[in-house]
Amino acid sequence: MTELKEQMNQWIAYIEAKLEDFIPKQEQFPPIIFEAMRYSLFAGGKRLRPMMVLAACEAVGGDREEGVPFACAMEMIHTYSLIHDDLPAMDNDDYRRGRLTNHKVFGEDMAILAGDGLLHNAMEIMADACCLNPCQKTTGAMQAIAHGAGIHGMLVGQVVDVFYEGKTLDGKTLDFIHINKTAAMICAALKAGAILGGATETVIGKFALAGEKIGVAFQILDDILDVTSTMEELGKPIHSDEKNEKKTYVDLYGIEKSREIACKLSDEAMAIWLELGESCDFLRDLTEYLTKRTY
Amino acid sequence: MTELKEQMNQWIAYIEAKLEDFIPKQEQFPPIIFEAMRYSLFAGGKRLRPMMVLAACEAVGGDREEGVPFACAMEMIHTYSLIHDDLPAMDNDDYRRGRLTNHKVFGEDMAILAGDGLLHNAMEIMADACCLNPCQKTTGAMQAIAHGAGIHGMLVGQVVDVFYEGKTLDGKTLDFIHINKTAAMICAALKAGAILGGATETVIGKFALAGEKIGVAFQILDDILDVTSTMEELGKPIHSDEKNEKKTYVDLYGIEKSREIACKLSDEAMAIWLELGESCDFLRDLTEYLTKRTY
Repeated sequence: MTELKEQMNQWIAYIEAKLEDFIPKQEQFPPIIFEAMRYSLFAGGKRLRPMMVLAACEAVGGDREEGVPFACAMEMIHTYSLIHDDLPAMDNDDYRRGRLTNHKVFGEDMAILAGDGLLHNAMEIMADACCLNPCQKTTGAMQAIAHGAGIHGMLVGQVVDVFYEGKTLDGKTLDFIHINKTAAMICAALKAGAILGGATETVIGKFALAGEKIGVAFQILDDILDVTSTMEELGKPIHSDEKNEKKTYVDLYGIEKSREIACKLSDEAMAIWLELGESCDFLRDLTEYLTKRTY
Repeated sequence: MTELKEQMNQWIAYIEAKLEDFIPKQEQFPPIIFEAMRYSLFAGGKRLRPMMVLAACEAVGGDREEGVPFACAMEMIHTYSLIHDDLPAMDNDDYRRGRLTNHKVFGEDMAILAGDGLLHNAMEIMADACCLNPCQKTTGAMQAIAHGAGIHGMLVGQVVDVFYEGKTLDGKTLDFIHINKTAAMICAALKAGAILGGATETVIGKFALAGEKIGVAFQILDDILDVTSTMEELGKPIHSDEKNEKKTYVDLYGIEKSREIACKLSDEAMAIWLELGESCDFLRDLTEYLTKRTY
């Protein structure tokens, strides 16, 4: 796993340098919004989604440079969703990634606008990239990301998550939340990368399927870690699901059964990477790391 | 003006039918978010921005059908911005277009998500249209709209507007707010329409310039009407700027001088339409109506 960690760190450094190119400096007028947007964007996430866009693009023989605008857009959309999720009207969280949440630092008004701004910026970056080279690849990647993030993906996952706070919830509804809130974006990242790299429809479908399995497994693991980990390990408050009266996989199935389900999904995703060959080795290692981590 | 009103009503009926095609029915799961999005989208606005996309497209010889997805996206972005502007953390308004604001009906969490959802939906609709026909026209129109709405347009206008509440503000800053918060979207609508219709760079530039002038004049008039009109006439609370401690054109220049500035901008925009010929007659009439209305 040391080699994987090194590869991930290289990707992270690469992505963070590119993110700098696509977001205004905070000296630009009005500074407060760019400061707020940058505060959350540069809070040290794992950059998994942009990493997946770029790695998928390379894995099918594409040029990683072509994936950069879309990878940066993915990370901005992910960050916007975290800022809005943390708001007092939503999860009302004070900490995220070991730092105060956006609204605790910049106020609720600027946090709403910083989230909006990141979503707008993602849209602009992708529109620019499509305009520079209007073709099936660029517009297809933008479409995959827009769908994964929107009202048939991440957004409705969050809606149902918020709506069911404190309410009884069945396995089907919990799956709807996980598939949409988390997996849709992972799926979109891998799909967009494969599209940009020029993969066939069949291969694009396999990337998307792997993404859905990884996404759900990753989220189940998050549910487990929320009860078994410590704040220091996670960088955010533990037992947050309980605090927010959110039912999780652990509530419905218990820790052991949840681990089994995550493990099965993880294995299925790994089998897809194996089938696609050694160009997907990094994605396979990353999948193992993400879906079997213990902290 | 009766003829113009009839033309506008025809456009409104056409646009509202098209909006229905681009937004999920509220029976779709999860219904609450689609109900909330539809509540504000179908609250009876004047549909000026989509009207301008379509009228501009036709004025330069394009097919209005090609403008439809972009026109609908414009209206969704405009509606999202109103929902978020009205939130308790922002302007904290209870009424909009004569009805309760989104968060008064659906709660703050769903109002934030309904706004987000409309922005996501706009992005999806445009991405779909670009993907269906990837070319300079479609991607150029999307780029114009993304820029007008985002961190170099509407969004930063709102940021500065919120930031200066209760603070002293000079003419330059107020112009920044009006140019970005209001004019950037009007400008983007006309520009996107002209791009979709296949206009030359020069003509596109003229549409954009007219849009900026109309947008600022329109907003100055809004400032004036906020003090001279009644709630029944406006469909929203009057003296809202005063309540929100917002400095307006009227505060800085007085009613008469403000009217003069708006009138000058309006005349300049009208001159552009005149120069472009009779295919812009509807846009000229619309400009006159929007920038010289007394209610």
